[in-house]
Amino acid sequence: MSRVPGVARAETTRSRLYDAAVRAFADKGFHGTTTREIAAASGMSAAALYVHHRSKEELLFVISRQGHESTLQLIRAAISSTADPAEGLRRAIHDFAMHHANEPTVARIVNYELDALVPEHLREIRGIRRDIEGEVRRVVVRGVRAGCFVVADAELSAAALLSLGVDLARWYRSGGRWTPEQIAEQYAELALRMVGATH
Amino acid sequence: MSRVPGVARAETTRSRLYDAAVRAFADKGFHGTTTREIAAASGMSAAALYVHHRSKEELLFVISRQGHESTLQLIRAAISSTADPAEGLRRAIHDFAMHHANEPTVARIVNYELDALVPEHLREIRGIRRDIEGEVRRVVVRGVRAGCFVVADAELSAAALLSLGVDLARWYRSGGRWTPEQIAEQYAELALRMVGATH
Repeated sequence: MSRVPGVARAETTRSRLYDAAVRAFADKGFHGTTTREIAAASGMSAAALYVHHRSKEELLFVISRQGHESTLQLIRAAISSTADPAEGLRRAIHDFAMHHANEPTVARIVNYELDALVPEHLREIRGIRRDIEGEVRRVVVRGVRAGCFVVADAELSAAALLSLGVDLARWYRSGGRWTPEQIAEQYAELALRMVGATH
Repeated sequence: MSRVPGVARAETTRSRLYDAAVRAFADKGFHGTTTREIAAASGMSAAALYVHHRSKEELLFVISRQGHESTLQLIRAAISSTADPAEGLRRAIHDFAMHHANEPTVARIVNYELDALVPEHLREIRGIRRDIEGEVRRVVVRGVRAGCFVVADAELSAAALLSLGVDLARWYRSGGRWTPEQIAEQYAELALRMVGATH
């Protein structure tokens, strides 16, 4: 079935707005960007922008929610792809690192602009973050129970494991010494070491 | 010898400006903050501010340089406090984590606002960052040569080791589940695992 043209057009407009907002927030930060600049960069008037998003903050929320939800799906898919906790953790950290090295701009906004969200939106994003941390913590706990991991604190281990990937958004630039794949492979091995995996 | 009053006063003013700039950059980001706001928050006119700092960017540079230099000193002190690479790395990651958990506001500005620096200042800060990474990489290499560490890539290992501490500035809030000391102890152990330290 072909799409209704009006719907397709609205989606194209939203996607253009999304891209313009990502670029603007990445360049000048959320607080340093005006709604007018985002509208101009996406070739529309500020009035037209408000048809799609009520505010600059809502654009940030849409970017943040999409980024967090795709991360949650990626982690869940990796962990559920195998019954082995070590292999599940390896795949999860691999894919998480790949994602951050391939999309550092979006990852920076998603991770470093949370304070700019209104309380209601922040609550929703924090919920997704708790789900992400919970997935990693549970696979660590599963590994400990199965006798293949040894950790002092599963929750802090999960936080540290996720830090490896998140911080790539800060320092990684493409065209440098390592490809995203090389980093992902190494980070997956580091993750197994961090949980004391017995090979 | 007592201080010259005029010099002491200038230092107090600079310190007030520094604190006001840290708070403003932390709240609204570098681009979202005006020089006028920093001046007002430190109880002076914008004109008076320019006597001490030529621009908002120079204030960011001063904050960033001070933050990076204190981190470099802390890492050097930890590593040089012992001849044992494992103990040196353990102390360095411990102190680095403590520093980031205790000073997350400054650490966030120092790590996440680099792109706002002018090229000349960015070069200087990048130089200090290379020194910090070099210290960690060298203690890892020393451990490998001494047969007590096993790593695939010392440079990437150093980047990952530093990510643990840096990312605390993003997620750690005091009064949460762990004290800075508890995190520092755990992260030091994780660091030894990451380099495959043989105990």
